Amino acid sequence: MKLYSYYRSTAAYRVRIALHYKRIEHELIPVDLIHEQHLNSSYSEINPQTRVPSLTDGDITIGQSMAILEYLEEKYPHPSLLPERIDERAWARYVSQIIVSDLHPLNNSGTLNYLRSTMQHSQSELLQWYHYWLRKNFDALEAIIAKKSNGQFCIGDNITIADICLIPQIYNAFRFDFAMEAYPTLLAINDHCLSLPCFAKAHPQQQPDYQPREGTAIP
Amino acid sequence: MKLYSYYRSTAAYRVRIALHYKRIEHELIPVDLIHEQHLNSSYSEINPQTRVPSLTDGDITIGQSMAILEYLEEKYPHPSLLPERIDERAWARYVSQIIVSDLHPLNNSGTLNYLRSTMQHSQSELLQWYHYWLRKNFDALEAIIAKKSNGQFCIGDNITIADICLIPQIYNAFRFDFAMEAYPTLLAINDHCLSLPCFAKAHPQQQPDYQPREGTAIP
Repeated sequence: MKLYSYYRSTAAYRVRIALHYKRIEHELIPVDLIHEQHLNSSYSEINPQTRVPSLTDGDITIGQSMAILEYLEEKYPHPSLLPERIDERAWARYVSQIIVSDLHPLNNSGTLNYLRSTMQHSQSELLQWYHYWLRKNFDALEAIIAKKSNGQFCIGDNITIADICLIPQIYNAFRFDFAMEAYPTLLAINDHCLSLPCFAKAHPQQQPDYQPREGTAIP
Repeated sequence: MKLYSYYRSTAAYRVRIALHYKRIEHELIPVDLIHEQHLNSSYSEINPQTRVPSLTDGDITIGQSMAILEYLEEKYPHPSLLPERIDERAWARYVSQIIVSDLHPLNNSGTLNYLRSTMQHSQSELLQWYHYWLRKNFDALEAIIAKKSNGQFCIGDNITIADICLIPQIYNAFRFDFAMEAYPTLLAINDHCLSLPCFAKAHPQQQPDYQPREGTAIP
């Protein structure tokens, strides 16, 4: 199994957590987005969207972190990334999709590039945009998750896809100086999850392609 | 089971197709986004994101169309929204998530409102934005789907979540005068699916809250 990853990609970070949690042996192949390796034809054949992550497993090659997480869950069901009860499974996917579908796409590098290059927005307007979508969605997430969380995980006593989506998003929030005080439940879950080996191993700073960079400039 | 819907919501349209395909009895509750019913406190308790769709089923209340589709699939497995083979299930989710996570969020009304109100973009700039994300993602979808499709469905001989996500997105493309000639595979699937009862019943024009509106103005 090969994971095409970039250390700072939120979506790749999600998949890395799942691979470590399930202890699935894999080869990690860094794709350097800064030097536009993702635009090479060898990569666009693997991923026509030219995005990371991609997963190849024998004859299967897919992109999209949520599709990859569901695939890993079906192929390697234990330990599970989903609660047992059908209502709680639905809830875990609900929380995940708020992050994956309503928050992350607005703040990823392709969107920010368009706002900067084509729409001519300044760095401060980009940061305002970035924080706006974080605030809007974190407000909803705090309300939704506080009802279910024990302060360690989003739901129940185990890691689920909800935690796997949340923690990388909080990493991004800190990276861009977003004030997190209004989100005590999210912060408590973040503190707990970051203490677990699978989150620690998947962390951007632990990746072979990690590059220390200064400041909070929009990429 | 209650579905909170808006006739023109792409995400609600997805869930309506699945409910009709699986022949699940449900009450459809229109939420009038134009008159801001989604911002009422009675609705924000149901959906803290104040978005449609939401599904309530007994004690369960969730939002996010993909989470709802997976829930319906787990509760009512037949007819299935996913292929049988694990690799094809992964592929169907991959295609779905391109639409749900990378295309639709950039073109939905909340995003367009921010670009217009806060960032002061003109109608023509919004349309350029709208078409840019359609083109970028439809280019990838045509390449990915053409390899698997028989010209009727995205994959195999049955409806899957991939078709359920694709058809509402093509409806939006036509609504905003997007040129579809470069996407013969997507058009063929669209023609076939629209001839099927579950897609026809779920169509925006067949909804109780349908309002005929003229033109292609960005909402």
